Amino acid sequence: MSSTLQAVHNIPEICAQLGITDVVLSPGSRCAPLTIAFARHPAITVRTVPDERAAAFIGLGLAQAQRRAVALVCTSGTAGLNYAPAVAEAFFQQIPLVVFTADRPPEWIDQLDGQTIRQTDLYGRHAKGSFTFPPDTIHPDARWHAARLVGEAINLAEQFPAGPVQVNVPLREPFYPKPGEELAFGPVKVTRELPGRPQLPAATLQELRETLRDTSRVLVVSGQHPADVALQLALRGFATAWQVPVVGDLIANLHQPTAASLNQHPRFIGRQDVFLAVPGPGLKEALRPEMLITFGQSLISKALKLYLRQHRPTQHWHVQAAGPVADTFQSLTQVIRMEPADFFAALSIGNEDSEGLNEKVAFPFETAAPDRNVLPADATRVAPRPRLNWSAPTETDTAKTAYLRPWLAAENWAGGLLAGFMQQPEQPFNEFTTIFRALQLLPDGAALHLANSMAVRYANILGLPAGHGAEVFANRGTSGIDGCTSTAVGAALAQPNRPVVLLTGDVAFFYDRNAFWHNYPVPNLRVVLLNNHAGGIFRLIDGPRQQPELEEFFETRQPLTAENTARDFGLRYFPISTFAELDAALPVFLTAEGGATLLEVFTDSKTNAEFFEQYRTLVRTSFSSPS
Amino acid sequence: MSSTLQAVHNIPEICAQLGITDVVLSPGSRCAPLTIAFARHPAITVRTVPDERAAAFIGLGLAQAQRRAVALVCTSGTAGLNYAPAVAEAFFQQIPLVVFTADRPPEWIDQLDGQTIRQTDLYGRHAKGSFTFPPDTIHPDARWHAARLVGEAINLAEQFPAGPVQVNVPLREPFYPKPGEELAFGPVKVTRELPGRPQLPAATLQELRETLRDTSRVLVVSGQHPADVALQLALRGFATAWQVPVVGDLIANLHQPTAASLNQHPRFIGRQDVFLAVPGPGLKEALRPEMLITFGQSLISKALKLYLRQHRPTQHWHVQAAGPVADTFQSLTQVIRMEPADFFAALSIGNEDSEGLNEKVAFPFETAAPDRNVLPADATRVAPRPRLNWSAPTETDTAKTAYLRPWLAAENWAGGLLAGFMQQPEQPFNEFTTIFRALQLLPDGAALHLANSMAVRYANILGLPAGHGAEVFANRGTSGIDGCTSTAVGAALAQPNRPVVLLTGDVAFFYDRNAFWHNYPVPNLRVVLLNNHAGGIFRLIDGPRQQPELEEFFETRQPLTAENTARDFGLRYFPISTFAELDAALPVFLTAEGGATLLEVFTDSKTNAEFFEQYRTLVRTSFSSPS
Repeated sequence: MSSTLQAVHNIPEICAQLGITDVVLSPGSRCAPLTIAFARHPAITVRTVPDERAAAFIGLGLAQAQRRAVALVCTSGTAGLNYAPAVAEAFFQQIPLVVFTADRPPEWIDQLDGQTIRQTDLYGRHAKGSFTFPPDTIHPDARWHAARLVGEAINLAEQFPAGPVQVNVPLREPFYPKPGEELAFGPVKVTRELPGRPQLPAATLQELRETLRDTSRVLVVSGQHPADVALQLALRGFATAWQVPVVGDLIANLHQPTAASLNQHPRFIGRQDVFLAVPGPGLKEALRPEMLITFGQSLISKALKLYLRQHRPTQHWHVQAAGPVADTFQSLTQVIRMEPADFFAALSIGNEDSEGLNEKVAFPFETAAPDRNVLPADATRVAPRPRLNWSAPTETDTAKTAYLRPWLAAENWAGGLLAGFMQQPEQPFNEFTTIFRALQLLPDGAALHLANSMAVRYANILGLPAGHGAEVFANRGTSGIDGCTSTAVGAALAQPNRPVVLLTGDVAFFYDRNAFWHNYPVPNLRVVLLNNHAGGIFRLIDGPRQQPELEEFFETRQPLTAENTARDFGLRYFPISTFAELDAALPVFLTAEGGATLLEVFTDSKTNAEFFEQYRTLVRTSFSSPS
Repeated sequence: MSSTLQAVHNIPEICAQLGITDVVLSPGSRCAPLTIAFARHPAITVRTVPDERAAAFIGLGLAQAQRRAVALVCTSGTAGLNYAPAVAEAFFQQIPLVVFTADRPPEWIDQLDGQTIRQTDLYGRHAKGSFTFPPDTIHPDARWHAARLVGEAINLAEQFPAGPVQVNVPLREPFYPKPGEELAFGPVKVTRELPGRPQLPAATLQELRETLRDTSRVLVVSGQHPADVALQLALRGFATAWQVPVVGDLIANLHQPTAASLNQHPRFIGRQDVFLAVPGPGLKEALRPEMLITFGQSLISKALKLYLRQHRPTQHWHVQAAGPVADTFQSLTQVIRMEPADFFAALSIGNEDSEGLNEKVAFPFETAAPDRNVLPADATRVAPRPRLNWSAPTETDTAKTAYLRPWLAAENWAGGLLAGFMQQPEQPFNEFTTIFRALQLLPDGAALHLANSMAVRYANILGLPAGHGAEVFANRGTSGIDGCTSTAVGAALAQPNRPVVLLTGDVAFFYDRNAFWHNYPVPNLRVVLLNNHAGGIFRLIDGPRQQPELEEFFETRQPLTAENTARDFGLRYFPISTFAELDAALPVFLTAEGGATLLEVFTDSKTNAEFFEQYRTLVRTSFSSPS
């Protein structure tokens, strides 16, 4: 065994020592030494996926579910370029991926050899770093370098904000051990990294508390964030202490019940997509924050983004321990370098106004409007139009609760409106209602994957049933449709005992069919495929809908059904065209038995657009200014 | 219409004026202004393909067939990253692609907006250039810049060596013209570029001629090159004047009959993959060049590459008008900046030794061995073993013909050996013979597309029937499997009246199934799919074959058949499992009628390996050193 091959064989040992357990490999010749080393390492699970695009998203799904780095291994040439969409998603969603790209040695680049491209720094500004393994390790310093850079790469991928790194591994022939030859792994020295949590000086925290005390209209908004019990508890404490609304999309994972909060906290707001679509300035003015506090990554709700850009706070604090910060609402005034959980915990005390106010104290607005998703009493056979009355002050209002009131009123109004609308008995078969019904029956504890582009939007409008414990994922780093299924497959592989439910559309689904093209079963995966035979989103937005190019160049009508795909990959298959079929199939579909299952819901793109327009009209016309 | 939208609407006009006729579009919202402008331009054909990876390879196939630039249009985000494999292939195969990536305006990058990545210079060192369209064109200089850079990008893509360029187009809302609004295209000023052909001074050419005259062992090797009648005529003249062998793989397209040469020229050598695999140094020493002259791009034949690296000429001239040059054989001594056709034409005169020697003069070796692909007289029911006797000099030998003799003898020997081997009556059903039979029946004038990895290797060993006029394509810029089908689909769209035949394997085929996922029929496409349910190449090479990881981590056995894919996309489908079925289906399959057709040939990976090993054994054992 040459010293260089030995250095390559040490790579899985370093990975294992630094906590990597899973590798997704796409076969090739140049990567053979990596393949053999990873495949034989006892602490590593290697899965083989031929389409590198799908492989990388499967790796992303694994890493997202396991909350630790996953390694990808591919051969030289364009293989690594097929990783690029998932690498960019990992970069912006802050998922640690360690990408090993086998390469020819440097002297053979650009010499017209096969499967040879320019792999150094292959992912450009979409990787946290790019490392080059030494092509020769005769010198002991080169062996030290080889081991060191693999560890550096893994540590860099894991460092907050996490993300993808590339390790380019130039390899010379021979690639293979002799038949029967045993591989040795190590010994290697690894460098571990213990992440610290930044803290602000006590005096600075006190100044922040004083600012909060002097500010009556404080709003917290969470971007995309993994489910995090400590963060939820801290947010709950903060929201209670300062009487502030906390707004989050589904992918903020603020909805999950915690040990301390068995139901959704009443100050958490999730229906902003509904009530911020109301016309007129009245409510919007009442909701305008003086101070905005944000954390996490991207927002789904375009209504919320536009609202905050149009109703800018005078102060905007963003809480993020490290890394570049976006000025999403064009109002950012202060970056606070702390973990959000630490920040909200540290700031949960110090409001003398709320002294003695705790969870047990009745909160004036908590039951002022119908519960979420419960049909209001006045629901009729036509779409109900609950009126929103959001501003009448009460005698117990303080300055802060006076700001909280309209947020909670709007949230509850939106819940009642949606519940009534979705449950109206006369409605055409459509995908919006399909998503509503699927979400109602979602197994508690499921991982819910929402594909771009309409599935995630519908689900964010509709929300989960109150107190539902599903953790919600979506590739909102780049919002691509390219790997949504593969990501869900990766999640299903990572957590074989947890139901993983993917809601997706036909364009995203067929784009990424190779998610299933491998030999690893995913019996816990359930896919709800909304097949309207087109990119339905384009019929739902005003611009393209009015253009003669709509059908050919925007919607791109496509005739596929998933039946043959289900047959190809052995998925249990339910074709659905009516509510009766849907209601009969959903409970069966969602049971634990039966293996990977695909529910293909056929709807008409125009009917979907009309029904969704009914919903939008209802929102607009139900809104009434305060008298 | 804003001036910025007008500047965007001028883009298709500039494209049309500079000769672009075809655009492949992948739908999106951000790219809407480009979509609408291209779709409405009367001189541009727009095709919509949802999977950007397939879309880009379809564009590459169109550009390759049309020999002019094709434009790609996609939306912002990872859409453009899915183009990356095809962009790299275009870069190394020198195919002009103009990639328009819609983007958000620069101030919104990294602000957590959806479908927003870092698109500037997205393809790194795999694009010839990256241009950024001005986000605002209020100032007249900005409008001049906008038009100028689009023209510069197209001209750069077309300049030799051609390749891909990116034009990133940041776009602000609103994206859409008013309903019913007419678009204006231009007026715009474009800058055309007239390519010059570099010439060497007459004195320098004379020096080259003198060097040739003083060198007795001159070998010409062509890399990948499009079919080119002028080049073939020049090569024919050069080979005749200097009595030199001209070696080329199938993708060198030297086999095509020309007006002046209705059969393959007898000095063209194509069976190097066979005869350079013979054991022992004798023949190889006889073939060793003193001077090597090369042109074109990559070689398929690994045997030839290794041979020339091990038997290095003392001089190696590479003829290439411009651009970086590879030292493929580690022997490069002189780069000649001329078009190969010009070089070989200029050097075809000046050899006084060959004065009076022309095509009509009997050439001593032309009929010394069996014709290609014709069974030798001694063929028996066992694999025939024609003996190669390559070195006996004849009385008419000059110094130069003495070097040519062993090349021609080896070529003819290899042809006879192959013909005998492939036509032996007792053989198991296998893919090597399938390719042989398919090539025998290939329609003259077809475009033959060879997928990586085994299809192109088998075909290069077997060659085309003598005098066959097929033009041969393969993605050998990067030798990826990722877009072989899409490239063939692009070729079929470009030339609806020409048969396009794709020979491919199962991994390449299923990888790129989305090649068919669009609404454009390709009735002239014929696909021969060799389905051995695995990456069969790994069983054919010694390293992985002997490893316990072979089946799971190299071959990656996969159970798919293409039947469901054929059903999904309306392809006529022939499943084939025996020679009888193959022989019955091939002529039907290859007829012009019937629409896009898929011949799926089921073989066993182990049987294929054994049969190919028989062939290799035959080559080794048939070779006899000269007595």
